[in-house]
Amino acid sequence: MTREDGTRARLSDGQRLDWLRLIRSENVGPRSFRALLAHYGSASAALAALPALARRGGAERAIRICSRDDAERELAAAEQQGVALIALGEPDYPERLAAIDDAPPLLAVRGQGAALARPTLAMVGSRNASAAGLKFAGRLARELGEAGFVVVSGLARGIDAATHRASVATGTVAVLAGGQARIYPAEHAELLDEIVIEGAAVSEMPLEWEPRSRDFPRRNRLVSGLALGVIVVEAALRSGSLITARLAAEQGREVFAVPGSPLDPRAEGTNGLLKQGATPVTEANDVIAVVQPILGRSPPTVNAAEPDPGPPAAEPDTEARARIVALLGPTPVAIDDLIRLSGASVAAVRTALLELDVAGRLARQQGLVALV
Amino acid sequence: MTREDGTRARLSDGQRLDWLRLIRSENVGPRSFRALLAHYGSASAALAALPALARRGGAERAIRICSRDDAERELAAAEQQGVALIALGEPDYPERLAAIDDAPPLLAVRGQGAALARPTLAMVGSRNASAAGLKFAGRLARELGEAGFVVVSGLARGIDAATHRASVATGTVAVLAGGQARIYPAEHAELLDEIVIEGAAVSEMPLEWEPRSRDFPRRNRLVSGLALGVIVVEAALRSGSLITARLAAEQGREVFAVPGSPLDPRAEGTNGLLKQGATPVTEANDVIAVVQPILGRSPPTVNAAEPDPGPPAAEPDTEARARIVALLGPTPVAIDDLIRLSGASVAAVRTALLELDVAGRLARQQGLVALV
Repeated sequence: MTREDGTRARLSDGQRLDWLRLIRSENVGPRSFRALLAHYGSASAALAALPALARRGGAERAIRICSRDDAERELAAAEQQGVALIALGEPDYPERLAAIDDAPPLLAVRGQGAALARPTLAMVGSRNASAAGLKFAGRLARELGEAGFVVVSGLARGIDAATHRASVATGTVAVLAGGQARIYPAEHAELLDEIVIEGAAVSEMPLEWEPRSRDFPRRNRLVSGLALGVIVVEAALRSGSLITARLAAEQGREVFAVPGSPLDPRAEGTNGLLKQGATPVTEANDVIAVVQPILGRSPPTVNAAEPDPGPPAAEPDTEARARIVALLGPTPVAIDDLIRLSGASVAAVRTALLELDVAGRLARQQGLVALV
Repeated sequence: MTREDGTRARLSDGQRLDWLRLIRSENVGPRSFRALLAHYGSASAALAALPALARRGGAERAIRICSRDDAERELAAAEQQGVALIALGEPDYPERLAAIDDAPPLLAVRGQGAALARPTLAMVGSRNASAAGLKFAGRLARELGEAGFVVVSGLARGIDAATHRASVATGTVAVLAGGQARIYPAEHAELLDEIVIEGAAVSEMPLEWEPRSRDFPRRNRLVSGLALGVIVVEAALRSGSLITARLAAEQGREVFAVPGSPLDPRAEGTNGLLKQGATPVTEANDVIAVVQPILGRSPPTVNAAEPDPGPPAAEPDTEARARIVALLGPTPVAIDDLIRLSGASVAAVRTALLELDVAGRLARQQGLVALV
C-alpha cells in the first residue's frame, strides 16, 4: 500500500506469514490472491474466509490451507539460505514485474535485490544453440551489460547460460522454474553462485519445489515481466522462448528477435517473430534505441500490500449465484458479458467468480473466465 | 500513344529509327527524351531542334547527334541477332517498367517478349554468396516460378545466377548492364542462351556496349522497375543489391529481405533492410501473400509513343532564361521553387531546363535539378 507520505509500506512479520500461507494454499494463485486481498482487506481475513468461500463455490471437499507451521518453516529456511521473500507492493519488489496482472504476491530473491531495481532486458533462446548463436548471445549480453542494463534469463542450457555468463560482471538475474533450493539444471548451481554476487536469482515457488515441465512456461512470464523487453536469440518453432515472447507482447513489453538463415531450423522461431513485427536485432544499439525512450517512464504504481478494506462487498444471493454459474461453461466468456447477462451487480459477479476460483472450478485468462 | 479505340500504337519504321537516333545522341537520357518528345511532339522534330537547343543551353561545342547510318546499322544488327527494339508506349513494352519516370525509350529484348507481360518478381544478392545463400535463392526462385511468377535478376555471379538457373524452366529475365552483344560476365553466355528459351534478356544500351562499372547501378533500376517487388538474398553493406532495393522503394515497389545471422557479413545488408521495414522472407508464401493483392492492379497507362503535339510551348525570353540559370547552382533545388523564385511560366522553366539538359549542364533527380 502507498502511505500518505508516498513511501510504500513493508509488511509486518505477521502479515508476511499470512501472505505466505495464503499463496501456498490450495487453489490460490497470483490472480485469486489479489482478488482475495481486495475483497477481504488482508491475507489474515482471507485465510479465515477461505473454507466457507470454497464451499460456496462448490468445492467437493475442504481445500488445503497452508498451516502456520509450514509457513514458518519456509520463512526460517529462506532466511537461513539468504533468500528474502519480498511482497508485491513493498519498495524492493521489482517495479515492472508488479505491473503484470499475475505478479507473484511473494518473490523469493537470493543475491543483490538492488539489481532488480535497475533497467532490465530479458534474453532467451534455444537450449541446443549453435556456436554462432552462443557467441552472438554472449556478445549482445556483454554489450547490454556495459550499457548499464541488467540482463535476465532462465538459467537453462544454451542461450540462457551464455547470456548469464557474459553478464555476470555487470549484473544478471536468473529466474528459476523451481524453488531456490532446487536449482535446475543442477550443473548450473556454480554459475548461479557467480550470478548472485552482482545479480540475483528469483523464484515464486516454495524453496524445495522440484520444477515440473508445466512450471517453465509459468516461469517465463516472470522473465518477460521483469524486463523492458525480451530479446529472442535462436528459437525453433513451438519453443519456450516463443512463449516468453508472446507473454512479453501480452504484458506490453518490447519483443526483439535476432534474424537467422531460413535454412537454419533454430532461426524459424525468431524469423517468425520478425514476420509478426518484432524488432530485428543485430547489435546492442538496436535494442537500446527502442527502450531508451521508455526507460524513464515508470509503470503504474501497484497499491498492493494490504489495502484499506473498502465497504463490505456484496455477496450474491443464492439465486444470483445460480444464474452466474449457469451462464458459465467450458468455453471462455468475458466477465463483462457475464455481468450484463446475469443482471447481477459487478461486486456480486466478482464474488461468485472468486468462490468458484477458490473451489478450483474456474480458469481465468485475460478478462475471460471458464469452468474447469 | 493510346489510339481512340483504346489500343496502343506501334511506331512506324521511320519513327523507330528517329527514336533510336534521339536516345543515342549526346546528353539525351530517358528523362530528357521524354521531355523532348512532350515538347516537340516527335523524335524527328526533337532531333531537328537539338543543336539549337543545346546552344541556347550553353553547350561549349556542338553536341553529337546519332547519325541515320549508325542507327540503321544498330537496327539491322539487332534484327540479325534476334533482338527486338520495343518502344515505350508500344503494346509489348513491359507495363510496370513503363511506369517508372526514367523508363528506357527503347528496350532491346532477346527471347520471349511474352515473358515480360507476366507477373514478375526480382531477386538479387551477393556475387560471393555462401552455399546456404545459393541454395536458398535456388529454392525460392523455383517456388516463385512454380507459383506462376517470372523471376528477374542481373545475370551476375552468385545469387543472380542461382536465381536464373532455378527458374529457367518457368521463365526468367536477365537485365544486362551492357549491350545484347556484350554479355557480362562472359562465362554466363551459355546460361543466357538457356534463359531466352522460356524467358528473355533485356538491355537499354547499344548492342555492342561494353558495360562500365557505373552502368550496373543504372541497370538496377530496370531490375526493380520490371518487378512487383525485389527480394534481396544475402547482401553486404554498400552492395549493388541495396541500390536495387532503394530504387525499388523509390519506384513504389515492394522490398523483401532474407534474414541472416548477425555474425555473417553477407547478411548485414539484408538485416539492415529488415530494420528499415522490408518484409522478412523465409519462404515463397511470404512474398506471394504481399504481392497477391496488387497483382490485378495495373500501373497507370503510359501515353508515350509519339504524343499529339500540344500548343507550341513558350520559349523563355533571354532575360527569363538568365534569371532561371542564375537561380541554379551545384546544390539541387526543387523545380517548383525555381518556378516560384524566377517568376517565369512553368513552360518557360521547363524549356530552359531542357536546354541545359541537352547542353549537358543539368543533373536531375526526383524533381530536383542542379548544374553540373
